[in-house]
Amino acid sequence: MSMSGAPGARERLVVIGGDAAGMSAASQARRLKGPDELEVVAFERGHFASYSACGIPYWVGGEVDDRDRLIARTPEEHRARGIDLRMRTEVTEIDVAGRRVRARDLGSGAESWTPYDKLVIATGARPVRPELAGADAAGVHGVQTLDDGQALLDTLARTRGRRAVVIGAGYIGVEMAEALIGRGYEVTVVNRGKEPMSTLDPDMGCLVREAMAGLGITMVNDAEVTEVRTDDAGRVRAVVTEDAEYPADVVVLGIGVRPETSLARAAGLPVGEHGGLLTDRAMRVRGHEDIWAGGDCVEVLDLVSGQSRHVALGTHANKHGQVIGTNAGGGYATFPGVVGTAVSKVCDLEIARTGLREKDARRVGLKFVTATIESTSRAGYYPDASPMTVKMLAERRTGRLLGVQIVGREGAGKRVDIAAVALTAGMTADQMTALDLGYAPPFSPVWDPVLVAARKAAREVREAD
Amino acid sequence: MSMSGAPGARERLVVIGGDAAGMSAASQARRLKGPDELEVVAFERGHFASYSACGIPYWVGGEVDDRDRLIARTPEEHRARGIDLRMRTEVTEIDVAGRRVRARDLGSGAESWTPYDKLVIATGARPVRPELAGADAAGVHGVQTLDDGQALLDTLARTRGRRAVVIGAGYIGVEMAEALIGRGYEVTVVNRGKEPMSTLDPDMGCLVREAMAGLGITMVNDAEVTEVRTDDAGRVRAVVTEDAEYPADVVVLGIGVRPETSLARAAGLPVGEHGGLLTDRAMRVRGHEDIWAGGDCVEVLDLVSGQSRHVALGTHANKHGQVIGTNAGGGYATFPGVVGTAVSKVCDLEIARTGLREKDARRVGLKFVTATIESTSRAGYYPDASPMTVKMLAERRTGRLLGVQIVGREGAGKRVDIAAVALTAGMTADQMTALDLGYAPPFSPVWDPVLVAARKAAREVREAD
Repeated sequence: MSMSGAPGARERLVVIGGDAAGMSAASQARRLKGPDELEVVAFERGHFASYSACGIPYWVGGEVDDRDRLIARTPEEHRARGIDLRMRTEVTEIDVAGRRVRARDLGSGAESWTPYDKLVIATGARPVRPELAGADAAGVHGVQTLDDGQALLDTLARTRGRRAVVIGAGYIGVEMAEALIGRGYEVTVVNRGKEPMSTLDPDMGCLVREAMAGLGITMVNDAEVTEVRTDDAGRVRAVVTEDAEYPADVVVLGIGVRPETSLARAAGLPVGEHGGLLTDRAMRVRGHEDIWAGGDCVEVLDLVSGQSRHVALGTHANKHGQVIGTNAGGGYATFPGVVGTAVSKVCDLEIARTGLREKDARRVGLKFVTATIESTSRAGYYPDASPMTVKMLAERRTGRLLGVQIVGREGAGKRVDIAAVALTAGMTADQMTALDLGYAPPFSPVWDPVLVAARKAAREVREAD
Repeated sequence: MSMSGAPGARERLVVIGGDAAGMSAASQARRLKGPDELEVVAFERGHFASYSACGIPYWVGGEVDDRDRLIARTPEEHRARGIDLRMRTEVTEIDVAGRRVRARDLGSGAESWTPYDKLVIATGARPVRPELAGADAAGVHGVQTLDDGQALLDTLARTRGRRAVVIGAGYIGVEMAEALIGRGYEVTVVNRGKEPMSTLDPDMGCLVREAMAGLGITMVNDAEVTEVRTDDAGRVRAVVTEDAEYPADVVVLGIGVRPETSLARAAGLPVGEHGGLLTDRAMRVRGHEDIWAGGDCVEVLDLVSGQSRHVALGTHANKHGQVIGTNAGGGYATFPGVVGTAVSKVCDLEIARTGLREKDARRVGLKFVTATIESTSRAGYYPDASPMTVKMLAERRTGRLLGVQIVGREGAGKRVDIAAVALTAGMTADQMTALDLGYAPPFSPVWDPVLVAARKAAREVREAD
C-alpha cells in the first residue's frame, strides 16, 4: 500500500460509498487529474455501484425488466477508467487525525487501513425502521439499495400469499404501492398522516388518496403501526395498528430515510439537526479542508426557507458528486442548495411539489396567501386535455413565490419546474404572471395552469394587506 | 348615441377587434368598473369573437371536431356580461383628435361615428401574401381567422383533388402540413429557408425536416415561389418556384403574419420597424394617454436582445388584454416583454425554442458559445424514454443564457419553460446547472436534458476565454 503525503508522490482520494454521489465524485476527480497525480480508491459495501436507487420501484413493478438496466456503470467500467473500486468492502472507521480509513472485506473478513489525502463521504441513507416488535422480521423490506430490491423480489417470488402492506405513504410508499398493484397484489398502505403524500399539503394529498382508491389500493390514514406480527417461523403475518390488523404476506417500509452518518459521527464530524453531515457550499465537511460529503448523507440549504434540510434524491447526489469531484480534482464548483422539488406518479396520476408547504412556511415565520386553481394540461378543446390542480403559496406583502404543488395527469409533473426556477430566482407571483411560457393548444391552455395560479396568488397578495 | 365627457357621465371604452387581446381587455375593464361608470363597446368585423386562432390547424386537421369548441365566449355571452359587442362591424377610421371611431356595419353598409374616452386597438395580424400573380386565386388560403379556417374547410370539402401545397415552413406551415396529411392529402411544403422552422437554427431545423420526411410530407427547401398558377376559372392549379412546379388543388399560406395596423397608421399612431404599434410597458400607445394596443398588432420588447420585435401568439394577446383592461379599468398592470418562447409539434415530434438563435445573437452584437446535447425524456431504463436534442446558447464571458432550442418526442416541448424562466431571471448557464428540477425516472434522467446542456454550455464558456 503506497504511503501518502511523500514529497512529489501522487495524492490519494478515498471515497466511501459507491453510488451516485461517491462515484460521480470519483469519476469527475479522475477526469480532472490523471493517475500520475491522483489515485482514486472507492469502497462500496454492497454488491452494486453506480445504480439508480430511484429506479427500484419500477424494477419491482416490472416496468424495468432487468436489474442491470438500473446500473449506470459496472465496477469493471469504473476500474477501466482508473478508479480502484473495492466492492463488498465496508469502511468501519474514519481516523480523521491519522488521515486514514479502516475497511473490512466482507468476503474474507480481513480488515486494513487505507491512508488518504482527500476523503469523500457518500454513505447514503438508510430506511427508517420503526422501533417495533417484528420490524426486522423476514418478509419486511426496505427498498433503499439494489440489494434491498433484490431481496424484496426474492421474497415476492417465494411468497404464495398476495397481500402486501406498505407502511408509509410518501414517494417511496406510493411508488411501491403502484409497483405491487402492478404485480397483482392486494395492497394496503398504512399511513401516519391525514392524507398520503405528506410532502404535499393535505388539501392536495386528498387528490392523491382519491386516485389511489381508484386504483384499488386500500389507503389507511391517521394510523400508527404498533407491531409487525410474525408467525412461528419468524415471517411477517400482519401489520397491527392501534385500531386494526392488516394481514400481510409481505411488508414494504416506505416511511422515509435518514442520513447514514454513523461512521462520520464516530469520527467526530459535524452533523446537523436532521442527522446529516454539515458542509459548506463547496460540499466540504465544515471545518475539514480535505473531507467532502454529498448525496443522501448530508444536509442541504433550503433556498426558500433559509434553513437546513435533508433531501434524499439521486439528482442532488449526482450534483453533489460533480461538485465534490471538481473541487477534489483541483477545480472549483459549488452547490448552492435546493428549493425542494420532487415529482412522482401513481399510475397516470402525476404529483409534484417545490418550495414550502403551508406548515413549512409557518415554521419559519412566513405569512402567506394560497391560491388553488383547476385548469387543464392542454387547450380545453384539444384531445386528451386532462384536469390539473395547482396550488401556489406566496408571501404576504412581498408576493414572493414560496411554493407550488401540482396534481394531475400527463403534463402535470414537470410543470413544477417552472416554479422551481422561479423560486431559485426569487420571483414574485406577480412577476410570474408575465412569464413567456411555451404555448400551443397541444401543450397548454393559452394561460398555462401555473400562470393561472400565479394570477390568483398575486391577487390574493394585493387583497391581503 | 350617448355623448362622452359630460361631467358625471360614465366613460366609454371602445375596443377595435373582438379576439383575444380586445375581448380580454374589454372583459377585464368590465370586471373592474361597473356599467354605471364605464360603457364598453367592441367592434369585430368577422363572424366570430374570442376564439382560439391557434386552434385552427387542429380544427382543419380534425383533432378538434367542432368549430364552436374554439370559441371561448360567444357574442351573446359577452353581451350578457355588459359588453356592447358589435359583430360584422368594421372600424374604418380612428379620429384621434376627435376621440371617435367610424365603423361600418358590414351587413347594411351603414357607417357611423362612435366617440370614445378610452380606446383599445386590437386589430391583430394578417397573413403575409406573396406579391405574386395568383396569390389571391380561389383555393389559396390563409389561416389567421376562424373565417379563414371555415373558408379553407369549405374549399377542402368542394375540391376533389388531393394535392396540397403549403407555402412556408414556420409554425403555421408545419402545423397545417400535419393537418392536411391527417386529412389524407399529399402535402408539399415549399420553404424559402435552408431548413423548416426558421425559428430554430438550421442545425436543429434539420431534425424537423427528417421527421417531416418520415411523415410522408414532401419538403422543398431553398425554394422561392415565383407564381401561383391558376386555371381558366381562376382556381389554383400549381405553385411555381424558380426550379419547379408543384401541382396544387389547394394552397395554404404559412409564411407568417404582419401586424394589421393600417387603421392605426392612417390615424398617425406610432408604428415600429416590424410594422407593429409601439406601446409603453402599460400597453399604452406611445404618446397617447388614453389609447392602448395589444395582441398581434403591437411590437413587444425582447428581454434577451433588448430590442423590439413582433410575436403573434395568443398567449401574449391574452396577457396584453389583461394588462390593458386592468389599466383602462383604473388599475395598474404592465407587460414587461417576451423572451421568445414557442412550442409546436408535427405529429409526435415536439419543437420548442426560447430566446435568441445564433443569427439573432449576432445581429445584436452578442458573442456566444453553443452546446448541443442528446439525452432522453425519461431515465434511460424507463419505458418509452425517447431521445431529445437540446441546443443552448450562452454569452461568452458572462455565461448568461441566451437561448434554448429543443427537438424531441413526448416531454420535449414544455421543457423549454425551464429556459424561459431562466432567461427572464437573467441566469447564467453555470447557475442553471444547479437548478433543482423535478426528477423521478418516469419524468427525467437524473440530469435533466436542459441541465446536461447547461453543463456543457458552462464548460464552453469557461474554455472560450
